[in-house]
Amino acid sequence: MAIEDYLAEFTERDWQELDSGTLRVAMIGLGWWTMEEAMPAVEDSEFCETTAVVSGSEDKAARVRDENETVEVALTYDELIDGEAVDAYDALYVCTPNAYHKEYVEAAAEHDKAVLCEKPLEATVERAEDLVAAAEDIPLMTAYRMQTDPDVRRMRELIHEGAIGEPVAVEGHMTQTMLDVVSDDVDQWRVDPDKAGYGATVMDLGIYPLNTARFVLDAEPVAATAMMRSEHQAFSKVPDEHASFTVEYADGTTAAYTASQNAQLSGRFSVIGTEGELTIDPIFLGQTPQTLTLRRGDRTVEIDSGRRDMMGSEMTEEFDYFADRVLREEPIGPDGQHGLDDMYALKAIYDAAETGERVTVE
Amino acid sequence: MAIEDYLAEFTERDWQELDSGTLRVAMIGLGWWTMEEAMPAVEDSEFCETTAVVSGSEDKAARVRDENETVEVALTYDELIDGEAVDAYDALYVCTPNAYHKEYVEAAAEHDKAVLCEKPLEATVERAEDLVAAAEDIPLMTAYRMQTDPDVRRMRELIHEGAIGEPVAVEGHMTQTMLDVVSDDVDQWRVDPDKAGYGATVMDLGIYPLNTARFVLDAEPVAATAMMRSEHQAFSKVPDEHASFTVEYADGTTAAYTASQNAQLSGRFSVIGTEGELTIDPIFLGQTPQTLTLRRGDRTVEIDSGRRDMMGSEMTEEFDYFADRVLREEPIGPDGQHGLDDMYALKAIYDAAETGERVTVE
Repeated sequence: MAIEDYLAEFTERDWQELDSGTLRVAMIGLGWWTMEEAMPAVEDSEFCETTAVVSGSEDKAARVRDENETVEVALTYDELIDGEAVDAYDALYVCTPNAYHKEYVEAAAEHDKAVLCEKPLEATVERAEDLVAAAEDIPLMTAYRMQTDPDVRRMRELIHEGAIGEPVAVEGHMTQTMLDVVSDDVDQWRVDPDKAGYGATVMDLGIYPLNTARFVLDAEPVAATAMMRSEHQAFSKVPDEHASFTVEYADGTTAAYTASQNAQLSGRFSVIGTEGELTIDPIFLGQTPQTLTLRRGDRTVEIDSGRRDMMGSEMTEEFDYFADRVLREEPIGPDGQHGLDDMYALKAIYDAAETGERVTVE
Repeated sequence: MAIEDYLAEFTERDWQELDSGTLRVAMIGLGWWTMEEAMPAVEDSEFCETTAVVSGSEDKAARVRDENETVEVALTYDELIDGEAVDAYDALYVCTPNAYHKEYVEAAAEHDKAVLCEKPLEATVERAEDLVAAAEDIPLMTAYRMQTDPDVRRMRELIHEGAIGEPVAVEGHMTQTMLDVVSDDVDQWRVDPDKAGYGATVMDLGIYPLNTARFVLDAEPVAATAMMRSEHQAFSKVPDEHASFTVEYADGTTAAYTASQNAQLSGRFSVIGTEGELTIDPIFLGQTPQTLTLRRGDRTVEIDSGRRDMMGSEMTEEFDYFADRVLREEPIGPDGQHGLDDMYALKAIYDAAETGERVTVE
C-alpha cells in the first residue's frame, strides 16, 4: 500500500455499516463533559441527535433545552425514571457521577432504551454487576472513547500485524489539574467516595491507559501493584490524588502507569515490543492534536492524521459507532461486561495500593 | 536571561574547577562498553589519559595496548592485583561484571588509587557494603554518567527552580535488545546471577531512571513494587528479561518504570509536576541526540543543545568530572555510599517482584 493511501484511509470508519438513520439521544447529567464535549459531538455526528436533556435542576434542563434546537424535552431525574416523555428519545447517554449510573440504566431497561454509559461503569464492583444484570435485555455500551479513536485503532492494527514484534511493555499516563478543569462545583463528586467509588484518579484517569492497553493488546488485565497518595485537602477522602501502578495483562505484557488529578495536563501512551515501539503523544486529552509514532530499529514514522479537524472529537466517532450498532440491532463492543471487567481491575489496583500487595484481578 | 545565553551556557561544565592536569587511568575490563564508549571518551577528555589496560586475556590486553598510543602497560587481572606497574596509573575505571568490582576496588585501596566504578556498584548489597568499606581511604565514584549529562543537570536545575511546580510523578524507561547490543560472548555475564547479582535488567537498565530521578528530585528511593518476567531461554536464570516497577521517593513523588533487555532500543524520562512537565527523549542510550522539553500549561520549549557533537559522549564529561575531583582532592558525588544506596533500592525492587509485596528500601 502506498503511504498516501494509508494516510488517506487513516481516519476512515472501519466499523461503519449504517447508511442512514437517526438515534435520538437523551443526555443524562449536564455537567461540563456533557455540555462541552458530548453535546457538540452529537451535533457533529451523522447518526445521532440530542432530543432530551435531563438534570437534577429543572431550570438548567429547561435552559439547555431552549438553547439547543434539536432538544424537545427537558426532564428532571425523577421524571426520567417515571417514564415521562419516553417517546422523545431512543437512547440514554449517562454522564452522571459514577454512583448514579445504575439507577438510570435500570430506568432505561424499564423503558426499553439503549444506553451509552460513561466509564467507570459504576462506583463499585457490586453496583456495576447489578447495572449489567439490569441491562440484560437492552443494548449497553461502556463509553470508552479511545476505542473509536482512529490513532488507537491504527495502533491496534499495527500491533496485531506484528509491526513491533511481540509486545513487551506498556507505558502510559494521564494527568490533569482537576480543580481547574472541572470548574463546576457539582463535579467535585470525583473526590467524594460515595459518588465516585474507590477513588478520584485511577477511576477517572488511570482507566484510560488501563483500558487502551486492554484494547490494543486484546488481553485482559490479570494483576496489579500500586502506590497512591493524597496530599491536597480536596483529596482528603480519597486515596489517590496521585497514583503510580503496574498492571499485568493476560498475554504476559506488563504495564507501568501514572495518573494524577493535580498535575500538569498530560497524556502519553506507548507499547514497546521486541522489534519496535508505538507511541501516541499526546493522547486521552480531548481536543488536542495527536501524533502516532512507529519506531522500528532506527526507522521512525510519525503520523498526524489531522483527525481533530476532520472529526470534531472522539465522542463524535463514539456516538456514531453506538448509533450504528443500536440502529442495526448488532452487538456492541465495548459492552457492559467489558466495562464490568475493568471494574474488577480497578478494584484490584485500589486493593493493591491499600494492602501493598500484588493483587490478582478477580 | 536571554534564551540565546541560556542555550549557549547549556552544556557548560557547571562543575569544573580544574585548569590543567592529567589523571592516568587504568581500564579494568575490556568488554564492548570499555572499548567503544570509555576509551574513546577518555581520548576526547581534557584531564584523563588511558595509560594501562587490564583484561583476563593477556593477548587482548597486549593488542589494545599496541593499538592505543597513550597506553603504556597491558596487565592481567592477577598482575593488577599484585601491584605490577603500579606507577603507570593513578586511577582505575572498573567495568567488569558486577561481581568482580569488589576485588578491583580492594586492589585499588591496597595500592592507593582512585576508582571510578561502574554501576550497579556490585552484584549484591553485602558485596557492595564490603566494597565501600574497603574504599574508605581512597576516592571512589560510582559511574552514573547521567549525573554529568547536561540535559539531566538542566532538568535538575529547572525542577529546583520550580519550573514544574511540585514534582508529582516520574515516568521512565530503558529498553534494548541485549542479545544484539552485547555481541561479545563474554558479556553474557549479564544473565548469569553469579556475575550480575539479582538480575539482568533492573540491575543494568532499570537503574538508569531509578538513579536519574533520585538525582533530579534530590530524594532517596524509599519503597518499591515490581513485576518481572523472563520468557526467552537466554534469561532462564534471571527473573527479569522484562520489568515494570514503581518506586516511591522520600519527597513523596512516585515513579512508574519500565525496563527490558529484549525489546526495541528506547529510553525516555519525564518528571510531571503540579505546574509543568519535563521530558528528555530519547535518553540513556549513549550516542543518540537528546531533546529536553519543558511544558508549562500550554507552552512548550524544546531544547536540542547539540551536546553530542560538542561532547563526544557523557563518559567524557564523567571522566573529566572524576579527574577534576580526584586531582583537586575534593569529595566526589556520586560516591560509593550513593552507589550502595541504590543497591538497597535494587534489592527492594527484586524482593518486591519475588514476594508480590511493596518492599521498603532498607
